[in-house]
Amino acid sequence: MPVGTRATVKAISPEELKELNTEIILANTYHLMLRPGEKTVEKMGGLHKWMNWDRPILTDSGGFQVFSLNQKEGLVKIDEKGVEFRSHLDGSRHYVTPEKAIKIQQKLGADIIMAFDECAPAKSSKEYFTQAMRRTHNWLTKCKKTNSKSKTQALFGIVQGGTYKDLRIESAKFVAEQNLPGNAIGGLAVGESKKKMYEMIETVIPHLPEEKPRYLMGVGTPDDLLEAVDRGVDMFDCVLPTRIARHGTFWTNKGTHHIKNQKFKNSKNPLQKNCDCYTCKNYTSSYLHHLIKENEIFGHRLMTIHNIHFLLNLMHKIRETIDKGTFPTFKKSFLSKYKKKQ
Amino acid sequence: MPVGTRATVKAISPEELKELNTEIILANTYHLMLRPGEKTVEKMGGLHKWMNWDRPILTDSGGFQVFSLNQKEGLVKIDEKGVEFRSHLDGSRHYVTPEKAIKIQQKLGADIIMAFDECAPAKSSKEYFTQAMRRTHNWLTKCKKTNSKSKTQALFGIVQGGTYKDLRIESAKFVAEQNLPGNAIGGLAVGESKKKMYEMIETVIPHLPEEKPRYLMGVGTPDDLLEAVDRGVDMFDCVLPTRIARHGTFWTNKGTHHIKNQKFKNSKNPLQKNCDCYTCKNYTSSYLHHLIKENEIFGHRLMTIHNIHFLLNLMHKIRETIDKGTFPTFKKSFLSKYKKKQ
Repeated sequence: MPVGTRATVKAISPEELKELNTEIILANTYHLMLRPGEKTVEKMGGLHKWMNWDRPILTDSGGFQVFSLNQKEGLVKIDEKGVEFRSHLDGSRHYVTPEKAIKIQQKLGADIIMAFDECAPAKSSKEYFTQAMRRTHNWLTKCKKTNSKSKTQALFGIVQGGTYKDLRIESAKFVAEQNLPGNAIGGLAVGESKKKMYEMIETVIPHLPEEKPRYLMGVGTPDDLLEAVDRGVDMFDCVLPTRIARHGTFWTNKGTHHIKNQKFKNSKNPLQKNCDCYTCKNYTSSYLHHLIKENEIFGHRLMTIHNIHFLLNLMHKIRETIDKGTFPTFKKSFLSKYKKKQ
Repeated sequence: MPVGTRATVKAISPEELKELNTEIILANTYHLMLRPGEKTVEKMGGLHKWMNWDRPILTDSGGFQVFSLNQKEGLVKIDEKGVEFRSHLDGSRHYVTPEKAIKIQQKLGADIIMAFDECAPAKSSKEYFTQAMRRTHNWLTKCKKTNSKSKTQALFGIVQGGTYKDLRIESAKFVAEQNLPGNAIGGLAVGESKKKMYEMIETVIPHLPEEKPRYLMGVGTPDDLLEAVDRGVDMFDCVLPTRIARHGTFWTNKGTHHIKNQKFKNSKNPLQKNCDCYTCKNYTSSYLHHLIKENEIFGHRLMTIHNIHFLLNLMHKIRETIDKGTFPTFKKSFLSKYKKKQ
């Protein structure tokens, strides 16, 4: 899922997203509840109509942002009922409960909505991780109840538990037992090593039902997608392809590159040979080097298109090779080329 | 002509420009000679190929920017042969002569290129304006000679002379005598009153041949276009529609509006009713209010599309009503609605 934090996938249009075969996008409850407010979005007919996007949308619950954008300043107060935090925009106070997080998401109107969870800071004690996980489970029950009458919005639960195997197993079992339409793994890709992240995925996956989507939140890089799919993950979201694009970083099958590098100044080549994205079919690296150096908006768009195309195309190939039974070979071959040049 | 200063019309694509029926765009020699340098553009096959635009391009000569971007700091040294200036980007020294300005434009490869002129500061004495004008004429002769063998690039001369009628007439006569494929009026819209600008246009026009394009440089607003066309002008360029768009200002037939205005927060209306641009057909003012308040790139694109559409549509109607013989009525009717709400 490309990320459209504020109801727009930065730098590109809904039509471009469709041309890239985007099937679903993510929008952020935290940002939208603060500005323009969920009531405005509801009045305007909901997210789909407002942003001119008629394919699926997933909204996160705001839990992750409440903690990650506020924890440094100690602006978050947590109790069993919910979380008080200050807006990172204007310092205004807000109190979000699991019930409220669901009601906000109901107003936004996404197709998939997420449970309100506590994403404990990475440096917390195991005791705290246990406490936060149990609170997350308690909140999940409340979210489920609040959304029980909805016939249009599918609620996904979120597994927490930090990097503790026993907590992750306890959490996965609890979330799976709720029998929701999909299950997510939260609290990873927050600073732990890749090895540890893969280990946690391996720990959790066997306890989440195979017939329902398993969604790894906030991931990731091309190699992370391959490794996570290999371990049983079906869905991802990440700001990476769009965010790095605007700074001039792009992916090819040989790894990560920076368009501002002087070697691209006079290059007539596209970002990647044989790539069939709009950017590669119409523009040279020289032109993109110029646009990004000059901070031109059209450069942001062109780089974003390439990176989303690269990642969605990778996912397409992953699905294709899984169907054919050649995924292990594809993964090995992709990673050997991709990592060589990084 | 929408302006593509650095070989990109800010925030929109060549395809979008075509959808807006853009027939020709302008690019800036000054910016492109400094970065990436005309040699890079030439190596890449020229502006058209580099920026993926197969319709006409006009490049200015760099004269206006050399003076306007540098005069405040007194970084410009002028002699009869040319101008020494420092780059506003890195302070590097450059010396541009009329011959060099043409050679740079030949490398950039636009279809219409402009003579190198001196645009004297508005506060100069009449004596200085006379001196600058004669130098501009002298340089025009050199530009013409330098471009004499070109079969693909049409050179336009530029009338100068400040706001002095006698100088403007002398300049217009001299420029017309060069028998170039088109003639431009420079040095206006630089701070003088609208009344004075219209007066200067009226002074100059009778001396420029009617059968060749008469181009008013750096103009302008919807009312300026109408007034200038009424006085015999055929061509314009201006950063206004694209620049104000990125700050949330847009035009309708009722005047100028600001999308950040609170009244648009919950408005389901398009920017202008019955407007058939992509923005108005697909997005509400509420969504655009949100995007511009959040400084979202897609907002810049959508507002830019509307403003260019508005201005090109106005020019289309102007041509249509001239053909029908109803231009005076159209002008009067447009201006009475447009100014009322400003």
